[in-house]
Amino acid sequence: MEGENYTVTPWEVKGKVDYDKLIIQFGTQKVTEELKQKISRLVGGDLHVMLRRNVFFSHRDLDLVLKDYEEGRGFFLYTGRAPSLGMHIGHLIPFIFTKWLQEKFKVNLYIEITDDEKFMRNVDYTLDQTRQWAYENILDIIAVGFDPDRTFIFQDTEYIKNMYPIAVKVAKKLTFNEVKATFGLDTSSNIGIIFYPALQIAPTMFEKRRCLIPAGIDQDPYWRLQRDIAESLGYYKAAQIHSKFLPPLTGPEGKMSSSNPESAIYLTDDPKTVERKIMKYAFSGGQPTIELHRKYGGNPDIDVPFQWLYYFFEPDDNKIKEIEEEYRSGKMLTGELKQILIERLNEFLEKHRQNREEAKDKVRLFKYEGKLATEMWSKIHE
Amino acid sequence: MEGENYTVTPWEVKGKVDYDKLIIQFGTQKVTEELKQKISRLVGGDLHVMLRRNVFFSHRDLDLVLKDYEEGRGFFLYTGRAPSLGMHIGHLIPFIFTKWLQEKFKVNLYIEITDDEKFMRNVDYTLDQTRQWAYENILDIIAVGFDPDRTFIFQDTEYIKNMYPIAVKVAKKLTFNEVKATFGLDTSSNIGIIFYPALQIAPTMFEKRRCLIPAGIDQDPYWRLQRDIAESLGYYKAAQIHSKFLPPLTGPEGKMSSSNPESAIYLTDDPKTVERKIMKYAFSGGQPTIELHRKYGGNPDIDVPFQWLYYFFEPDDNKIKEIEEEYRSGKMLTGELKQILIERLNEFLEKHRQNREEAKDKVRLFKYEGKLATEMWSKIHE
Repeated sequence: MEGENYTVTPWEVKGKVDYDKLIIQFGTQKVTEELKQKISRLVGGDLHVMLRRNVFFSHRDLDLVLKDYEEGRGFFLYTGRAPSLGMHIGHLIPFIFTKWLQEKFKVNLYIEITDDEKFMRNVDYTLDQTRQWAYENILDIIAVGFDPDRTFIFQDTEYIKNMYPIAVKVAKKLTFNEVKATFGLDTSSNIGIIFYPALQIAPTMFEKRRCLIPAGIDQDPYWRLQRDIAESLGYYKAAQIHSKFLPPLTGPEGKMSSSNPESAIYLTDDPKTVERKIMKYAFSGGQPTIELHRKYGGNPDIDVPFQWLYYFFEPDDNKIKEIEEEYRSGKMLTGELKQILIERLNEFLEKHRQNREEAKDKVRLFKYEGKLATEMWSKIHE
Repeated sequence: MEGENYTVTPWEVKGKVDYDKLIIQFGTQKVTEELKQKISRLVGGDLHVMLRRNVFFSHRDLDLVLKDYEEGRGFFLYTGRAPSLGMHIGHLIPFIFTKWLQEKFKVNLYIEITDDEKFMRNVDYTLDQTRQWAYENILDIIAVGFDPDRTFIFQDTEYIKNMYPIAVKVAKKLTFNEVKATFGLDTSSNIGIIFYPALQIAPTMFEKRRCLIPAGIDQDPYWRLQRDIAESLGYYKAAQIHSKFLPPLTGPEGKMSSSNPESAIYLTDDPKTVERKIMKYAFSGGQPTIELHRKYGGNPDIDVPFQWLYYFFEPDDNKIKEIEEEYRSGKMLTGELKQILIERLNEFLEKHRQNREEAKDKVRLFKYEGKLATEMWSKIHE
């Protein structure tokens, strides 16, 4: 989808995205105040910071998901990850929000790890590599704190047997012509990557209930294919709740990317590295000199450290308001704002590293032995 | 591959095939007298009727297979079947020859049952149907008499987990452009059938030994793709031994086909049906009247009952010679020749039906519990 100054596709996010316009262009729905109030009522309490602040701003069929929940039919969550050498903060955002949804609605969650797709997409990667990355990424995902009895983390190359029958039914409904544009394929693509959309869609049919997928809005086109065919196979169209993009450190436009390591904070970055990256690379909305800053104030709307705090790292609404006002007025300097983010990031990463250590003992639980995992391994999806 | 008066592709065999020319056109090798003598020496005895009579007439790397065997490296056999509602005599021919090879060389045999491909190829079929056919066809295959400890019969939708890793490695090496012509695909093909070539090739890599595939020569193009990529994955190029086509009942040209039931004898045809079909439909090389037949004799070269006897159903070389001479001289009438075939066919089918009944108790052995099957289920193919 292209706007005047931006591009949003599953494989590229570029420019300053106009999110209101994107909702119209993608044909999705806005997450309205009314919907947010309904969620608040259903979960009996406060909304997650990413909902309150409209980080998750767009949806498809979220209203129907809530109705299903309200009327006792329930729903389930589905998300995934293409394993990579290291995960950065941007990768974790949808998982953090998904965890909140699971905790509040007490629903099953399926997390697909696409070790096959990653291997087939990149001529240089071996399957051993993408599986090793899968293991490492799974530790980071478990560290987010999912419910081990309601969460099933599965790797395509392992769980394929159980999902292959439903995958071939999906595959039979999708022609090369239908998937090529959405998945960026052409006739010189390999035949494995051409089949892969079927494996991405299959988990939306793990239960005969509505599936809710929390993801960046750039992922929406993938699920349109699912929505085209789901009902003909006797399943629900996948519902989605879409997030905005956490801006890369280096500027307020586009999306954090692994291909530009300076633009991201990795989950393995130590406190010194975090400090250095934020101080050196984080794009500032402040003025060039202290004098000018005190006089004209900073611009939080384009300031990446402020955006990161707003997005997630400062969940206290009063505090974020205070920071915004002080920064805009010039009372708070760029360095001070950056220090706040550095502190929050390092607190977060410190806790994450502890959780990740503990996750090593939980891998078997999430993949094979937890309540949901045990159920899933005994099922063949048709 | 097209000759002046014939077409031979994996999905069509038409016209009067010039087999000598086909060897040149396909670029395969002739099964020479020297090779046949070598086989005879290695197996310590007579050759199978289909080798003696050059029904299996062409090959790729059969010489290397025999060398591997002779020098102790061994080899293995691989064949398969796309399940169908009923199997006819033509379907059984490669299995009968494969059984002989297994018995004589004492080697492992893998039989792939492509319940997935059959389902995805045909818009009208359900997966339940193709699996039911798979079960029925497996009974017919087991009835041929394979060694339950050296034979593994596997259905794609069941064994996918164990072979998916090697299949994605194969898939990564093959582009849509490379498979489309060979498999008769275009951009409106579904993405499952586009992936399928990877699953057809994967079993050629079940062992780090040379794989020998006995099949109709029309199947050769499939294996050329395998031969293009096998060595880059650390495996052998698949060797093949190619058969001619058992002519359809209705005429000496083309290939027996399920889409024309009159042209085939089904394994379920009862004695009366066999008699009726042969008497009514079997294309004869005899003369229009008894008088003319006695005077000019019959032409066994185009006579389908004679061809069937020659192909397989009269393995005694003296007897077939006698039949040929008597028919050619006019001493034997068309009706008499047909009666010989009817008798042989009914003997064969009677025995087959008994074996098929007994096969019901052996399915688990061939699929899951025999020596080779047990080994295979404990392996992941990488």
